[in-house]
Amino acid sequence: MKQLEKITPLEKDFAQWYTDVVTNGNLMNYGPAKGTIIYKPNSYGIWENIQKTLNEVFKKHGVENIYAPLFIPESLFKIEKEHVQGFNPELATVTQVGNKKLSEKLIVRPTSEVIFANLFKEDINSYNDLPKIYNQWANVVRWEKVTKPFLRTREFLWQEGHTSHSSAEEARSFTVKMIKEYEKFLKNYLAIPVVSGKKTCNEKFAGAVSTYTVEAMMKDGKALQTGTSHYLGQKFSRPYGISFKNKNNEEDFVYQTSWGVSTRLLGAIIMVHGDNRGVIIPPKIAPIKVDILEILADKNPEVSKVANKIYKELSKKLSVRLDASNKSPGFKASQSEIEGVPLRIEVGPRDLENNCVTFVRRDTLEKTKVDLENVKKEVNNYLKLIQNNLYQAAKQRLEENTVYAYNYEDFKKHIVDNKFVVVPFCCVTKKEIEIKEETGATPRCILKKVKPRGVKLECVCKSDGCCDDDKAIKYVVFARAY
Amino acid sequence: MKQLEKITPLEKDFAQWYTDVVTNGNLMNYGPAKGTIIYKPNSYGIWENIQKTLNEVFKKHGVENIYAPLFIPESLFKIEKEHVQGFNPELATVTQVGNKKLSEKLIVRPTSEVIFANLFKEDINSYNDLPKIYNQWANVVRWEKVTKPFLRTREFLWQEGHTSHSSAEEARSFTVKMIKEYEKFLKNYLAIPVVSGKKTCNEKFAGAVSTYTVEAMMKDGKALQTGTSHYLGQKFSRPYGISFKNKNNEEDFVYQTSWGVSTRLLGAIIMVHGDNRGVIIPPKIAPIKVDILEILADKNPEVSKVANKIYKELSKKLSVRLDASNKSPGFKASQSEIEGVPLRIEVGPRDLENNCVTFVRRDTLEKTKVDLENVKKEVNNYLKLIQNNLYQAAKQRLEENTVYAYNYEDFKKHIVDNKFVVVPFCCVTKKEIEIKEETGATPRCILKKVKPRGVKLECVCKSDGCCDDDKAIKYVVFARAY
Repeated sequence: MKQLEKITPLEKDFAQWYTDVVTNGNLMNYGPAKGTIIYKPNSYGIWENIQKTLNEVFKKHGVENIYAPLFIPESLFKIEKEHVQGFNPELATVTQVGNKKLSEKLIVRPTSEVIFANLFKEDINSYNDLPKIYNQWANVVRWEKVTKPFLRTREFLWQEGHTSHSSAEEARSFTVKMIKEYEKFLKNYLAIPVVSGKKTCNEKFAGAVSTYTVEAMMKDGKALQTGTSHYLGQKFSRPYGISFKNKNNEEDFVYQTSWGVSTRLLGAIIMVHGDNRGVIIPPKIAPIKVDILEILADKNPEVSKVANKIYKELSKKLSVRLDASNKSPGFKASQSEIEGVPLRIEVGPRDLENNCVTFVRRDTLEKTKVDLENVKKEVNNYLKLIQNNLYQAAKQRLEENTVYAYNYEDFKKHIVDNKFVVVPFCCVTKKEIEIKEETGATPRCILKKVKPRGVKLECVCKSDGCCDDDKAIKYVVFARAY
Repeated sequence: MKQLEKITPLEKDFAQWYTDVVTNGNLMNYGPAKGTIIYKPNSYGIWENIQKTLNEVFKKHGVENIYAPLFIPESLFKIEKEHVQGFNPELATVTQVGNKKLSEKLIVRPTSEVIFANLFKEDINSYNDLPKIYNQWANVVRWEKVTKPFLRTREFLWQEGHTSHSSAEEARSFTVKMIKEYEKFLKNYLAIPVVSGKKTCNEKFAGAVSTYTVEAMMKDGKALQTGTSHYLGQKFSRPYGISFKNKNNEEDFVYQTSWGVSTRLLGAIIMVHGDNRGVIIPPKIAPIKVDILEILADKNPEVSKVANKIYKELSKKLSVRLDASNKSPGFKASQSEIEGVPLRIEVGPRDLENNCVTFVRRDTLEKTKVDLENVKKEVNNYLKLIQNNLYQAAKQRLEENTVYAYNYEDFKKHIVDNKFVVVPFCCVTKKEIEIKEETGATPRCILKKVKPRGVKLECVCKSDGCCDDDKAIKYVVFARAY
């Protein structure tokens, strides 16, 4: 049997803590090809719940799921220039089958805008065919140089929505709708609060007119981009020739969006909620909501009987697990904790004498005696409590570690402290790159917030060539990011 | 708007009929890379229902879903020789990233035995870790020369189960369990009866000790392999070193199985149930169970009102669709038929005068007037009727077109007639290949059936070198196959 390993305290070495957590807890193994991982039952189970939940959300917006091919002929990929430029060095390419060379190289999709462009071109003729609102759940490949499980791997899983609309307004509004849905989903299911807004020009998706993002704060204060929604305008529809006859019988090109979240969300869950005993999975998204542990079952036959009864009762409505093995109580508890099961119920001989069992919350590690007759009701209460507590704790952390700065010295000080720093900024790419080089921080998003009336703000970089136009200055959140 | 195309009658040209059906009905488009397809909402929706249903089945057997990488380093793939030999000419290979050549070629998985072998090797130490029962839903790539949508494409979707056990008996029994589950699933959900049994040595999976299969009969009489379950014994665990300490503290290698069904099932549904108006999807697996059509809604405002009421009522429990467009009644009906929606409800002014609507069954095209108050109840009845009727029709076809032959001349005659032909056969590979060359038929599976007592059967090939051993003769189903 694999031993549970010691986890490095997160205060001591956050990176090592993360590695220790992910390589335990039934979350992942490294794959045989460098930079790839195997999603094990505990992480893949979360991903399945994410799929289920988002599919319900998508359905409300008329999204239809489809599946498009993995391979993109090189010539097709190369039509939209910015898109190619953005992805080129990361493109894995099939050149050979068996021992034969292919006549045209095939790119393993890093994203599927161009395949969907091809599909839309074939299927759209008039405004009657619009909107087309598609999504796919798929694996994608990007040859990252530095990889980190769940956050940045050479292959990962995601959903990518692709839509075509008959007007720019409709497409823009759809783009915003989806980022709002991601924000709600992260809050309500993953218990993760986010900062939401537009990306700067330099940070937007290769080929988009504009990109909206939801950014979460990890326990070390760094940012993680957890979802994006792009307004593509006609940037793909023109070069790919996706035209349609509008209501006035004129030929126009469709207006498009694309939007996605990926298995990075698993990394976010770990780094937002995890502690020194392992991951903590929010109940609403947990593959196993409750662990029932038989404690010293050999001492009293009632233990097994009661544990099984509780298991049967709870498993009618919840995904629960029964550990009836003869491993030591301490080992069972550690295993449940390292896997982040939100609630565990310990059924032992001493408690049974008092007609009760012990609840142990994974978030606070608090223990409570619960009367046998109240178990079912209390399980539901506790799961709600835990879900809510995880969110509140994350929200408090985000608020406490978000600060304002109005000059570059303050800005740098806060960035060194790993804060989210809100600054007035001109959004000029050259300046953005200078700031990144000096501080390691990047603009995560532009806030919608307008500056107070009558106040003349200066751009945080306050140097020549950027701040001439006062109107260009916006509140921007900077942070170091994964 | 895309026009619905005329479908070639299946009696006239079955292959062309199939192409006409799949390229319509919102089922698929060809992908830009040759030999690939896009699974559109109507086919992908079936696949999602297949996933949902099989996941429930798998759960009962303790299956845990995971996701393993797409890429297999060439050196890892090459360890098990039979396996490599079986797949080699079909292997798509990534040799390049961006403009750089990779130091080791990466094979795009055609199946994942070796990746799972690697995982098992890392995670299994003792009998305490066994069994490990994993499954993944994934895309796989096999460079087929001749492709046909859903049946044989260069990329397809499937589930592949991979298990490790501590004894041969347990693994063998698991292999059989899974093929039985597939048989039940095909019958109860896809309304497809199958012939089930072992593959001959020549037809089994590259690397398996034995392969079990479920074989369905298409409307043209040809066979389609719709699911397989392999007993791998120690054929992977030895070369890949997946050893464990057994209960006697001795080192042994694990005993393995693998099993899968793929998006071929979509082809099976089309070719078992389809007719000259398009596909017919069995209700239990249909993405849309009921189409509600507003007929001449502009003539009477009640039409829209009633159609919406029915839609709201039914959609509480079923996936239904409302067509409130101003397309002609004939067009709406054709569209519903070509997409194979099992039941449609036409809501029109004349019926409403009599307080009823018209039900049209997709399977028989029968029309029935149903009182408004009975709609909900009757929908459920009809869906059951249709599901059952599709199965009974397919079963009757299978039975009527399965024949016995006891000599080679009869055998050939039946094969030309596109029957499933049951023959006593020696299962010698050389003979099997000769038969295939002469008749185009292959052994689909060995039946469990024993020959009648006291009867001395002769092998159907009845020629030198094969039938010496009377005991080796088994009842084998031959057919031409997809």
